[in-house]
Amino acid sequence: MGDSLISKRLNITSRVRDYEVSFVADLRKALGSERLSGAFLIIDADLPGAAAIKKLFTPNRVISIKASEKSKTLEGCTVLIKNLTDRQFRRNDCIVAIGGGVIEDMVGFAATILMRGVEWVFCPTTLLAQADSCIGGKSSINMGPYKNLLGSFYPPRKILIDLAFLKTLPEDQIRSGIGEILHFYLVAGQDKLAQQMMSGYAKYLKEPEKLQSFILKSLAIKKAVIERDEFDKGERLLFNYGHTFGHAIESVSGYKINHGQAVTMGMDIANYLSWRMGYIQKGTYVHLQKILRFNIPLFRPSRAQWPRFCEALSKDKKNIGKALGCILTRGPGKMFKAQIPMDGPVALIREYFTERRV
Amino acid sequence: MGDSLISKRLNITSRVRDYEVSFVADLRKALGSERLSGAFLIIDADLPGAAAIKKLFTPNRVISIKASEKSKTLEGCTVLIKNLTDRQFRRNDCIVAIGGGVIEDMVGFAATILMRGVEWVFCPTTLLAQADSCIGGKSSINMGPYKNLLGSFYPPRKILIDLAFLKTLPEDQIRSGIGEILHFYLVAGQDKLAQQMMSGYAKYLKEPEKLQSFILKSLAIKKAVIERDEFDKGERLLFNYGHTFGHAIESVSGYKINHGQAVTMGMDIANYLSWRMGYIQKGTYVHLQKILRFNIPLFRPSRAQWPRFCEALSKDKKNIGKALGCILTRGPGKMFKAQIPMDGPVALIREYFTERRV
Repeated sequence: MGDSLISKRLNITSRVRDYEVSFVADLRKALGSERLSGAFLIIDADLPGAAAIKKLFTPNRVISIKASEKSKTLEGCTVLIKNLTDRQFRRNDCIVAIGGGVIEDMVGFAATILMRGVEWVFCPTTLLAQADSCIGGKSSINMGPYKNLLGSFYPPRKILIDLAFLKTLPEDQIRSGIGEILHFYLVAGQDKLAQQMMSGYAKYLKEPEKLQSFILKSLAIKKAVIERDEFDKGERLLFNYGHTFGHAIESVSGYKINHGQAVTMGMDIANYLSWRMGYIQKGTYVHLQKILRFNIPLFRPSRAQWPRFCEALSKDKKNIGKALGCILTRGPGKMFKAQIPMDGPVALIREYFTERRV
Repeated sequence: MGDSLISKRLNITSRVRDYEVSFVADLRKALGSERLSGAFLIIDADLPGAAAIKKLFTPNRVISIKASEKSKTLEGCTVLIKNLTDRQFRRNDCIVAIGGGVIEDMVGFAATILMRGVEWVFCPTTLLAQADSCIGGKSSINMGPYKNLLGSFYPPRKILIDLAFLKTLPEDQIRSGIGEILHFYLVAGQDKLAQQMMSGYAKYLKEPEKLQSFILKSLAIKKAVIERDEFDKGERLLFNYGHTFGHAIESVSGYKINHGQAVTMGMDIANYLSWRMGYIQKGTYVHLQKILRFNIPLFRPSRAQWPRFCEALSKDKKNIGKALGCILTRGPGKMFKAQIPMDGPVALIREYFTERRV
């Protein structure tokens, strides 16, 4: 590909295969110069500009998917694999996936199990996928009533990021992506950088395509960790910071609160617990809350929601026995894994929701 | 585990995780000393001695499977995963799989996709699984009408081989395993060793538990190759020697001819083609046939079967366009990949079946 089309690159080392992230100025041109027009295209049916992209590919090799939590199931992946096989997909063919997290999960998982693994290229179109999930190779698939029960670690061969897609996203999705970027910055001890991004918060909500340097830094932080712990055995688990509480918030809100903002509130809760349990000073808690505050959603579990919130916490996959598995902090860059008997943190979280004035 | 229980070990390096093969004198004792009694057991329901093994495990953690081609499907794996999940399987739990190739395929595949990969230990009970498939991490799963469409590379953490299981196998399965061992020997240029094993053919059919040194050598040959080419991109493809033709023979016989003997005949056909196409001397072909002959099944496609035989060849996954993808030889240890337009080899194979007097 002509280098003029690429503004930045990142190489990721993986035990499956090494791969590359490129920021491209024009995805359609990039797909052409990467000689990907012979590949099978799997694209989010609702993506603005999808029609023009589809024209680049052989018509019989284009599959549009209505991306939703319902398609992110084993059944959805089975239909996708059958669809590819019926169209004579061969083991040396390549899949190009264009969309957000759901498309990434479906294609990543299908590419893992089809013929013991086939090549795929991913073009993330949401801020969350561009700044986080596009690297690391994780997929998550629902099976029956079990959310995210199935999955794999199987990165694409190449990732092409076109920032222009961000302009088409609803503001809610930008807020969500910013939450996930904030979480990488705090885990890496980059609270200054988080502050800097948040000082332009209102601007970036309007012009998210200007977030490139922040996206790149977010990916660079994640890259360093996944290269050391690709299969989530140790250090990579620290990226669950904010997520245990965030998932419970998402779940109780009926997924009305987006993932990244739920994680932002989840970080604030983790920091609150860390302060109240003696791991950080109040000043540190307040400092971090000032950074996070504009991205914390207005949410407080109602009396009726509270038991469901506690139940969601008790079902977290990181729990061992009756202890809550979560990530706490001794300050920016100093997150640590903790297993704490459930009643203590539950009482403190109740206090958090009562005391907090955001 | 006390070393007295282990007669031989082999360590395999893998990009997923390194793992170990141990020959154990008594599987039940070995499972105890490996502290595996807390694991989930998945066992071939028809295995002799299954009842005594099951008693070692928590009753709620024992799953018996009727192993057949029908269970080796995506549906079969889904039922297995649901079964594990309903029994509260957690991501740090381990699965112990005891059985032959079908159990290995099902558990290997399920362990790949469940929670992005869980630990499993495999105890192979057939000669084919002990001498070949237990290492390399491959699984193959049928989906709808597509045989072996799905699969993965995901080795167990540990492999425990108890030769006593071989005593319980029908002779047909010993012949099958011997065919696969022969194929490793010829690919590695160990025709002397193949000769040596075949000089004891009648004895080993009666006392297969005495094959240990031959099994170990077979695994050592495979180990060297999979460590260099785990994901089947180059050198490991040479292990398809005999398999293109073997698969067609198995298929046309309605799977009445076992895999390893079909492969033995497949090797003889590959050698015949290699001779007639000028890659080896007639003397080499005859030398190799003398080694293989007792394990070559009595089979000749009937006039009605012939078109189906050719069709099976034309559908081989290694074919590119209309060329037959197969492995030919310039002599023991000198196998090579070839893509040859279909009509030539088809005419020569017809000649092979007409001329051959085994």
